[in-house]
Amino acid sequence: MSEQKNTYRSIFLWGDKKIRPLEEGVRKLVKNKFGLTDTDLDQSHLFADDEVRLGTSPALSEKQIKELQNICGTENVKTDDYSRARNAHGYFFGELLKLRMETIDSPPDVVVYPKSEQEVAQLLAFAEKENIAVTPVGGRSSVTRGVETPQGGISLDLSGKLNRILEVNETNHTVTVETGVMGPQLEAHLNKLGYTCGHFPQSFEYSSVGGWVAARGAGQASTGYGKIEDLVLAMHVVTPVGIIQTKDYPATAEAWDLNKTFIGSEGCLGIITRVTMKIRSYRPKNTAYASFIFKDFETATSMMRKAMQSEIGVPHLFRISDPVETETAFSINGFENSVSDRFLKAMGYKTGSRCLMFVSVEGDKGYTHLVKKKTKQLAKKHHGFYIGGSPTKKWLKQRYESAYLRDPLMDAGIMTDTVETAVPWDKLISLWKAVRTYLEHREKSHVMVHISHVYENGANLYFTFLSPMKKGHELEDYKAYHKGLIDAIHQNGGSLSHHHGIGRALAPWMEEEIGSTAIGLMQAVKDHLDPKGILNPGNTLGLRAEA
Amino acid sequence: MSEQKNTYRSIFLWGDKKIRPLEEGVRKLVKNKFGLTDTDLDQSHLFADDEVRLGTSPALSEKQIKELQNICGTENVKTDDYSRARNAHGYFFGELLKLRMETIDSPPDVVVYPKSEQEVAQLLAFAEKENIAVTPVGGRSSVTRGVETPQGGISLDLSGKLNRILEVNETNHTVTVETGVMGPQLEAHLNKLGYTCGHFPQSFEYSSVGGWVAARGAGQASTGYGKIEDLVLAMHVVTPVGIIQTKDYPATAEAWDLNKTFIGSEGCLGIITRVTMKIRSYRPKNTAYASFIFKDFETATSMMRKAMQSEIGVPHLFRISDPVETETAFSINGFENSVSDRFLKAMGYKTGSRCLMFVSVEGDKGYTHLVKKKTKQLAKKHHGFYIGGSPTKKWLKQRYESAYLRDPLMDAGIMTDTVETAVPWDKLISLWKAVRTYLEHREKSHVMVHISHVYENGANLYFTFLSPMKKGHELEDYKAYHKGLIDAIHQNGGSLSHHHGIGRALAPWMEEEIGSTAIGLMQAVKDHLDPKGILNPGNTLGLRAEA
Repeated sequence: MSEQKNTYRSIFLWGDKKIRPLEEGVRKLVKNKFGLTDTDLDQSHLFADDEVRLGTSPALSEKQIKELQNICGTENVKTDDYSRARNAHGYFFGELLKLRMETIDSPPDVVVYPKSEQEVAQLLAFAEKENIAVTPVGGRSSVTRGVETPQGGISLDLSGKLNRILEVNETNHTVTVETGVMGPQLEAHLNKLGYTCGHFPQSFEYSSVGGWVAARGAGQASTGYGKIEDLVLAMHVVTPVGIIQTKDYPATAEAWDLNKTFIGSEGCLGIITRVTMKIRSYRPKNTAYASFIFKDFETATSMMRKAMQSEIGVPHLFRISDPVETETAFSINGFENSVSDRFLKAMGYKTGSRCLMFVSVEGDKGYTHLVKKKTKQLAKKHHGFYIGGSPTKKWLKQRYESAYLRDPLMDAGIMTDTVETAVPWDKLISLWKAVRTYLEHREKSHVMVHISHVYENGANLYFTFLSPMKKGHELEDYKAYHKGLIDAIHQNGGSLSHHHGIGRALAPWMEEEIGSTAIGLMQAVKDHLDPKGILNPGNTLGLRAEA
Repeated sequence: MSEQKNTYRSIFLWGDKKIRPLEEGVRKLVKNKFGLTDTDLDQSHLFADDEVRLGTSPALSEKQIKELQNICGTENVKTDDYSRARNAHGYFFGELLKLRMETIDSPPDVVVYPKSEQEVAQLLAFAEKENIAVTPVGGRSSVTRGVETPQGGISLDLSGKLNRILEVNETNHTVTVETGVMGPQLEAHLNKLGYTCGHFPQSFEYSSVGGWVAARGAGQASTGYGKIEDLVLAMHVVTPVGIIQTKDYPATAEAWDLNKTFIGSEGCLGIITRVTMKIRSYRPKNTAYASFIFKDFETATSMMRKAMQSEIGVPHLFRISDPVETETAFSINGFENSVSDRFLKAMGYKTGSRCLMFVSVEGDKGYTHLVKKKTKQLAKKHHGFYIGGSPTKKWLKQRYESAYLRDPLMDAGIMTDTVETAVPWDKLISLWKAVRTYLEHREKSHVMVHISHVYENGANLYFTFLSPMKKGHELEDYKAYHKGLIDAIHQNGGSLSHHHGIGRALAPWMEEEIGSTAIGLMQAVKDHLDPKGILNPGNTLGLRAEA
C-alpha cells in the first residue's frame, strides 16, 4: 500500500512534512493576481504520493557495501530505495519539480552515516581506492543542486551520527561541534548555558553546521553577527590527501587563511568534520525592536546605507521589503484599509511605493538602546515613520513558517522560488529595477524583493517570485525563467549568490563571473586535494565534472 | 668620499633617516639595567658609514636588462650598487645587523619600477620565460625577511610608480588604489574628502597598501576597524598564469573567497597590483579617549575580554602594557615618584604589578560616548583606575616615534627587537608568563609586553626586548635567542604571527604549525600559479625554495 510514508511526497515536503493550508490572504492574492479559481488551486498538482521505487540496484558490489559496513557499522549503511531517493536531492525548485514528477535520475548507491572523523577518513580512503563518488550532506536544505549525486556513489550523511557538541569554551566564547549538528540542537544547548550561535538561516531548523560552512551561508541576524565565514575560527577537514586542522586563533598572519579555502567549498575539497565557531551571550530581554514605514525603496535603502556607514553600532536584523513585498504583507495580514493604513496613506505613505523595515538589535542593554535610538533618528531624517517594535517581533516569531508556503503553492500549480544576490550600494537600485523588470516580463507573475543582509559597502537583494506553472512543461519553463533571472543579476553587477551558494545550479555562470584564471586556480586546489575527483563530482562550483 | 649618502647606514636607518639621540630616560634605564656606562653607550657600534659596494655585477645579461628597460622605461630600471643594496633587505633585526656589518649576501640584480598593471604582467611574462626570480616590494618595512632576494633577480618595486589613488567611491565607502601607494599619501587624500583608511600599522609612514595586504597586517586601531583582511573587498593579482580580478561585493557565497588566498601570500603567488578597500568617515573630534591603571595584568586582560564579549560596541585602539612595560613608560616619562605616582601607589596600584591601558573609540559621537562609558564601568568593576584621556592622546601623538629608538640603541650596542603572536583568551596568561620567562632567562635583558589587538575570542601579545649584543657574535647570538623565543611562543599555543607575517624568518616553523597536508595545499596553489617558482623564492612562508 502506498501510504503517506515512503512516498516521493514525504521526501520533498519541507521540514516537519505537515502541509499548512494556504491562508485566506495568500489564496486571495494568488486568485486575483493570476486569475485563478478555487478549483484551480485545489487541484493537487504533481502530488506525487506514490511509494518511491528506484527500479535500479546500487551499482556498488556486495564486497564494497560490506567494506562500508565494516567501517561504519551495518546499521549506518543504507541501500534501500527510500534512503537513496531521499539523499538524491536538496530543495532547489527544479529538484522539487522532478521529485513531484516521481523522477530520480541518479540516486546515490548508498547512504552512510559515519560516527567519527576517523570513519570519515576511512570512508574517503576506501572511496579513493575504489574510485567511488562521495557527496557530503547535512540537512540537505541546499537550493543550488549542491547535494545531487550525478555519479551515484556514496551520500556521506553527517547529520545522522556525527553531530556531537564537543566543547563550549566560556572563556574564549567558542563552541566546537561535529558538523552534523543541526541548528536547533546547537542553539538549545547554547541557550541553556546563556549563549547563542547567532546564525539563523531560513533553513535553521533543518540545516547543519557543516552545511552552513560548506555553502557559506548567512543567518537573518548576520548584519550584526556576520556571515558564517565571520563566525568560524577553526575546523577539521578530511581530504583524500590527508586531514587539515586549523587552530582557534582569534586572528593570525600565518600566510593566507586556509579556513577561507574550505568555507564555501561545497563538499568539493574535503569533508568538514569539526568546526570551532564564535558564540555570543544570549540575552533576549535586552533586544531592541523597531519597525518603520518609508515612502519609497530608494529612500529606505539610502537610510540603511547611512546607518551602516555612520558607525552608530549595527543592528542584527536589518530588513526592508520593497513596495510589492510590503503591500503583499499588508494585504495578507489584513492591514490593508485598516484605520492605521488609511492614516498612513493620508500621511503620504502610499500603496505602491511605501516600504516596511524591520530592525532588531542584540547585546548589552545600553548598546541596543543606543542603536535603536540612532536608527530612529536616521529613519526620521529620511521620513521613515516609526510603527513600534511589534511588527518586527511578529515577523521574527513566524520567520521559519514562510518556508512552508511553497508546498501548498506547488500543490496549487504555482511556481515559487527565491534567488538572491549581493551588490555594492551604487548598483543596488539599478539591479533591483532591472531584475524586477525581467521577472515581471512574464505574463502572470508576482515578484517580491527585500534586503536582509546589510553592510557598509552594499547589501543583498532577495527576490521571491510566484507564477502559475506551465502545465506539462513545468521544468523547462522554470529552467528558462531561472536562467534569464541569473543572467539579469549577473549583467547588472550582482554576485551569483550572497548566501545560497553555487552548487550545480549556478555553476554555469562561474567562469564568466570570476574569470578563467580564477577558475583555474580553484580547479588546481581541487585537483590537489581530490586527485581522482571523487568529492561531490558533477560540475559543482563550476569545477571539472570528473577528474 | 664616503659621505652620508650612499652608505650602508643610510639604507638601514629607519624612516626619515634622522637619528634621534637616546632620551635621558632610556639612557638611564639601559645603563642601570645592563650595568653600562656612558662610554659604553657612545661607541657607535657597527656604524656602517662606508659607501655601499657590492663588488659583483648583475647576473642578468645586457639583453635582459634592455628588455626590462623596454617594458618599464630606462629610467625605471636600476642596476647601480646602491639601488640593489637598498632593495636586498627589509627591517628584520638580523638583516639590520648584516647591513651594519656591511654584508649583502645576495642583492637583486636589478630594481624595476613598473608604472602599470600591464607592465607588471609583461615583466612577469618575461621573467617566466627567462626563469628570473621576481620579488615584489613596497615600503620594505618587512620584519620577517619577506623581501630578501636569495636568488637575486628582479626586485619589483611598486612604491615608485604604481601608486595612484584610482577612485574614492563615496556611495560604497571604498577606495581603489594601485598597491604602491604609501600610508600617508592614502590617508591625506582620504582625510581631505572626510574619510580615513583606518589602518595604521607601526610602519604606517613607510609602508604600502600592497605590503599591508600581502603580509596580512593590522593597524593600531584594528580592534575597531579590523585587520587588513577585513578591509579588502577586491583586488587585481597578476600571476604567471594570468590575472585574477575579484569584485567589490560587500559579501558573497560564490564558492570560496579567493581574496583570502592572496591576503597573506607575501609575494609568493602573484603581484597584487590593485586593491579596493573599505573607508570610514574621518571625524577625529568625535573620538573618545580613556586611560586606566589596573592592579595587575591578569585583571586587566579579564576586563578586556569582558569588554569584547559584552557587545557594548568596541574600542578602536585597545591596548594594555604589562607591568614592566608600564613601569618603563612611567620611568621614561618622569612619572615615577611624582605626586600622582605616590597617590596611585597608596591606592594599591603597585610598581611591578600595575598596568597601563589605552582606549580610544571612533565613529558617531553617541557611539563613542557609549563605548567609553561602558568601558569605564567595566574597568571600575575590575578596579581599574581612570586617569583621563590625556595619556592615550599623548601615546597616539608619538606612536610612530618608537620605531626610531632602534637605531640609536643599536649604535649603542643594544639588541632590540619585537615579536608578536595571537592566542585564545584561555592561553593568554600562561603564554605571557612562559615567553617572558624565556626572554628573561638571558642574563641582561629588559622585556616589555603589551596587548594591542583585541578580539572576542582572544588577543595578540607583543613582546619587545632589549639586551646588550654579544660583541663579535651579534648575529649568531640574536639568531639563537630569536629561535628560542619563537619555540616558546609555538609551544605555548600562540600563532607564529598576528600581523608581522611569516617571510623567511618564521618559515622554518610553518610545517609543524599548520601540518604537512596544509603546507602541501599551499605548495599546490603556489605550483599552479607560479609553475617555475620565480615569485619571491627561497622558502618564503615555508614553501619550496625553488620550483
